[in-house]
Amino acid sequence: MDLVTLADLRAAADRIRPAVVRTPLLPCAFQRFQHSPLWLKPENLQPIGAFKLRGAHNALARLDADARRRGVVAYSSGNHAQAVAYAAAKEGITAHIVMPEATPAVKIENTRSHGAEVVLVESAAQRESAAYEIVAERGAVLIPPFDHPDVIAGQGTIGLEIVEDDPHVDVVLVPVSGGGLASGIATAIAALSPRTKVIGVEPELAADAREGLRAGTPADWPLELRNRTIADGLRSQPSELTFAHLRASLHDIVTVAEDEIREAMAVLARSARLVAEPSGAVPVAAALFHAAELPPGRTVAVVSGGNVDPALLADVLAVRG
Amino acid sequence: MDLVTLADLRAAADRIRPAVVRTPLLPCAFQRFQHSPLWLKPENLQPIGAFKLRGAHNALARLDADARRRGVVAYSSGNHAQAVAYAAAKEGITAHIVMPEATPAVKIENTRSHGAEVVLVESAAQRESAAYEIVAERGAVLIPPFDHPDVIAGQGTIGLEIVEDDPHVDVVLVPVSGGGLASGIATAIAALSPRTKVIGVEPELAADAREGLRAGTPADWPLELRNRTIADGLRSQPSELTFAHLRASLHDIVTVAEDEIREAMAVLARSARLVAEPSGAVPVAAALFHAAELPPGRTVAVVSGGNVDPALLADVLAVRG
Repeated sequence: MDLVTLADLRAAADRIRPAVVRTPLLPCAFQRFQHSPLWLKPENLQPIGAFKLRGAHNALARLDADARRRGVVAYSSGNHAQAVAYAAAKEGITAHIVMPEATPAVKIENTRSHGAEVVLVESAAQRESAAYEIVAERGAVLIPPFDHPDVIAGQGTIGLEIVEDDPHVDVVLVPVSGGGLASGIATAIAALSPRTKVIGVEPELAADAREGLRAGTPADWPLELRNRTIADGLRSQPSELTFAHLRASLHDIVTVAEDEIREAMAVLARSARLVAEPSGAVPVAAALFHAAELPPGRTVAVVSGGNVDPALLADVLAVRG
Repeated sequence: MDLVTLADLRAAADRIRPAVVRTPLLPCAFQRFQHSPLWLKPENLQPIGAFKLRGAHNALARLDADARRRGVVAYSSGNHAQAVAYAAAKEGITAHIVMPEATPAVKIENTRSHGAEVVLVESAAQRESAAYEIVAERGAVLIPPFDHPDVIAGQGTIGLEIVEDDPHVDVVLVPVSGGGLASGIATAIAALSPRTKVIGVEPELAADAREGLRAGTPADWPLELRNRTIADGLRSQPSELTFAHLRASLHDIVTVAEDEIREAMAVLARSARLVAEPSGAVPVAAALFHAAELPPGRTVAVVSGGNVDPALLADVLAVRG
């Protein structure tokens, strides 16, 4: 299987530069462990509130004129939907986004506000077939959320930026779900700074990737198990392609508990002035509560996204007497 | 009176580069007015949670070896205290910070955690005399929060960065209190992009600078009037030095209401994933609710700080109904 290369990552970086925010590394005063000073890579500050814009924009920017005329399609109720909608609008490409009717109105509105055509289907199970109907009817190009080399290369630009900003980084903490983000970042860091350890972080309740990597073959956890975690962005599983990248370049995976994720969200809001969604707070939860399981040294935690339901955010931040 | 020059600003930028975060401009999808697209300059992401680090670090970095041995002193219960404490630790200088006993414990703790000596006094009125005692006893150098050319030059580096990142910016919105931030930014923009309009923003309840600038002479509002605003960082008044800068380079001042400040805080958290303190949300409140009073065009709002009491943040974000 061909893996994404450093050249792919560098080409992606050039392609996406006009569309994404060059996020800085933020030093954290709140980290308690002096032997492991912590920086944050705040991808929640991307225009759509998550790193997904990088991969989606890279995939769209590579389309030829013919494909651009036919348009793109994605099925997602999460950050990938908004990423494709936003990137398509920037590139002047028609985007169809297939979403279940039960998707919160605010997410449907946000996706429409970026100019995308939202196609509602009755259930999540119908999303994929509805998307393929649009592919068949219009010749539209399907943009997958993680299972594609262009998407992996786009997410990996985060790794290039981390090494550029801190050539002495020792540890990078990345959430793992479908594995596109972790694959891209681990590939970048392995190429540019092989002594740096990239550690994946999963919720205990959706730790299929850890199980799979330890066994050397993908583990399949039923969706109803994975759906238990509050980290709604971390309920997917690696594909063959992302699993191969993770095996090649990821150092290890640690897991965090649900209450640790909530506490990390509160710490990020109060001490780093960042709103993170549960999935985006998972690496910081590892830094705060699992330091003994991590290699020591200069540590960067990727805050992958900040699209959190306002009621959940208010609940996490509620000051209890 | 000598005003700060572009050369001062550029020297400050070189001096503070190792200590401050180079904040990006963040495009805002939530801005409703297509003729005035909005970007944020998130200074709440500085290590101490506010822009004040820029001015404090510039002032400290200019001290000679003799002054460094004697140490520095500041009186503040707000962001300036933490800025001086943090910058002094970075430079290996002893810092004494004078605070009233009634200062919230968390702010005293934060200041101590940066390695500063906190000197508690009974009332806010005693802060200044206590600080001058330390100056007399130790020969320590007083670092004022805004009334100093080095502090103004440090804050003005924000203006250099805005023009560097968007040479076509039309409008910059800046909070006004003691006027150090607005003076520095207005000076930078007037030198580099004279067609760009820098607009100050004040709470209606502490609008002394607007009154003063319209009259051409500083207005003095009693502290008990200024203390009414929720924007606790905007209760100071310009000094002679900052007033002169504002007269020279600020285009206008608009004011915002208290409920507009709270709403801007909620919008920033939910739609820009940024925690802003009330003072830091004031320019965004102007963009959201006073667009008709602002010049049209590409607009940057400075989010000056994010050190908000957790209970107030929770209250502003509470989902009602």
